[in-house]
Amino acid sequence: MQRTEISTYGEFGLIKHLTEKFKIENSSTLKGVGDDAAVLSFETKKVLITTDLLLEGIHFDLVYVPLMHLGYKAAIVNFSDIYAMNGTPTQITVSIGVSKRFSVEDLEQLYAGIEMACKKYGVDLVGGDTSASLTGLTISITCIGQADENKIVYRNTAKENDLICVTGNLGSAYMGLQLLEREKVVFAANDQAQPDFENRDYILQRQLKPEARKDIIEMLAEKGVIPNSMIDISDGLSSELIHICTQSNVGCRIYEDKIPINIQAVIMAEELNMSIVTAALNGGEDYELLFTAALEDYDKILTMDGVAIVGHTTKSEYGLQLVGREGEELELRAQGWNSLDE
Amino acid sequence: MQRTEISTYGEFGLIKHLTEKFKIENSSTLKGVGDDAAVLSFETKKVLITTDLLLEGIHFDLVYVPLMHLGYKAAIVNFSDIYAMNGTPTQITVSIGVSKRFSVEDLEQLYAGIEMACKKYGVDLVGGDTSASLTGLTISITCIGQADENKIVYRNTAKENDLICVTGNLGSAYMGLQLLEREKVVFAANDQAQPDFENRDYILQRQLKPEARKDIIEMLAEKGVIPNSMIDISDGLSSELIHICTQSNVGCRIYEDKIPINIQAVIMAEELNMSIVTAALNGGEDYELLFTAALEDYDKILTMDGVAIVGHTTKSEYGLQLVGREGEELELRAQGWNSLDE
Repeated sequence: MQRTEISTYGEFGLIKHLTEKFKIENSSTLKGVGDDAAVLSFETKKVLITTDLLLEGIHFDLVYVPLMHLGYKAAIVNFSDIYAMNGTPTQITVSIGVSKRFSVEDLEQLYAGIEMACKKYGVDLVGGDTSASLTGLTISITCIGQADENKIVYRNTAKENDLICVTGNLGSAYMGLQLLEREKVVFAANDQAQPDFENRDYILQRQLKPEARKDIIEMLAEKGVIPNSMIDISDGLSSELIHICTQSNVGCRIYEDKIPINIQAVIMAEELNMSIVTAALNGGEDYELLFTAALEDYDKILTMDGVAIVGHTTKSEYGLQLVGREGEELELRAQGWNSLDE
Repeated sequence: MQRTEISTYGEFGLIKHLTEKFKIENSSTLKGVGDDAAVLSFETKKVLITTDLLLEGIHFDLVYVPLMHLGYKAAIVNFSDIYAMNGTPTQITVSIGVSKRFSVEDLEQLYAGIEMACKKYGVDLVGGDTSASLTGLTISITCIGQADENKIVYRNTAKENDLICVTGNLGSAYMGLQLLEREKVVFAANDQAQPDFENRDYILQRQLKPEARKDIIEMLAEKGVIPNSMIDISDGLSSELIHICTQSNVGCRIYEDKIPINIQAVIMAEELNMSIVTAALNGGEDYELLFTAALEDYDKILTMDGVAIVGHTTKSEYGLQLVGREGEELELRAQGWNSLDE
């Protein structure tokens, strides 16, 4: 495979080369890449800003994550935060730090993934920074979005007796990660080994190429449901539900048997002798949405494909309860995947 | 000195601890740190976005850069990009990646510097990300600003026969860096050596604690001058002037003896047997503004303290010319400080 050294381009040439394929598609983008700052116009809409820093060896392992997937996921993770406000992502900036280990072709792969995500979600790349790095790959993405002020949904506005709803299923991305980690160990012991990925495509995709729940945000708008509170599930259901409840000063009661789980994730968990419920509660990286909604929206929510009601909020003095399959009550704890504990 | 391990806090606790001192001062900030995204409101103003990635060992050397200064400078560099659009910075997000080498007290220093810059320039901290890092310190800052659409100044809109103007003086930050590098070598050879910083305070300050030219943007507004083009000087006058001229399709003619230079920088350059003009043209990190303005604004610009007219633009076929002290003509070349060449 061809290998072009990054130094061939120089900083400005490289940014131009990597970003020139991106098209501007939003009317809110007045000026994208190429000046001291991008210029955006949001008229009467409010502006949402979120940012994520991804570091090699902490957030991703290039041994099993292809660069194109990494680019895709890095963008999606940010879009997900904007959807979690009930908004629409419109622009991103992408900064990267790269060591000499990486070639121009590597970065083209990374940006191809970012471009694919931008195209699918209708987001414009409007700026960024490119720098040398002494060690590995650093990716910093900031996402800008828009929303009508009266539709923005916060974390700290859940009410007592709200329905607690979860989209998609949980724990799959974590089980995908466990599979990749296992195959990495096998490969390290025997580099002729072929990875055993049969019938694992779904959990692998959830880990390597997650999607953000644009469809759910559109469905909520269609059905006329504005959640009372919402957050995206990046660190596991427990951790996110604790954020909502403590910040909203309510308690909660969720039911283990209501937590949506995919069959591939169950099989993988059994094979690895792990608890799929623990993976769903604490696994992270699902990028599903957790929201609470008023009881009056119950009928509407029942008609929403891909949304499961897993419990309800309570008075705060009742605490945060998980009701097990046998009716036993457990206190919810955050053991979320925390990149500071590495 | 006390040393608290970062792991004592956990990710959310750490962000809270580091950011809780920051005050929200802009009416455009509806919701700052603490949700999936910040919420901002700009009414009829346009929104400006710029971002910078700073990596230890590439952009800064903690041997001689105190963390508080680093935080201050990291913020200022971004504010400068917003001023270079003739806008006002209003919010920043700050993401950091930190290895175990750093303590909570270290990060408090870093954030104290960021807070100082935010307070001085009236900017709100509204978000960010905190992560472990395998190696060293990574800082990624995104700055949001606002401007009236008809006052935004781009790089690619210089006209023929514009005045070329430069604020402050150039080359000082680079000479400050040379001094710090020299003292680092001396100290490495003899750790009892005391750094020789007498009468060097100005160039050190320009390197370690630069300011952004808010005052110039305010003065331009007061005097009713809207430049035809503008850029901030982060990579040296040559490189920035080439950006403006090539993107605007004009030539230029600047005069060596008009380039504003500080006496401390001149003395330092002589001592190190370097050319101060080369430092001014290619040194970088001055964070002054380079702008072009119509000839009709000549009288107004003459009344502006801290603004020097260094030449004028020409038809593009005349090329990019530097006229030396003896009247000799040299072609301007970009040898700007390029972090990808490291």
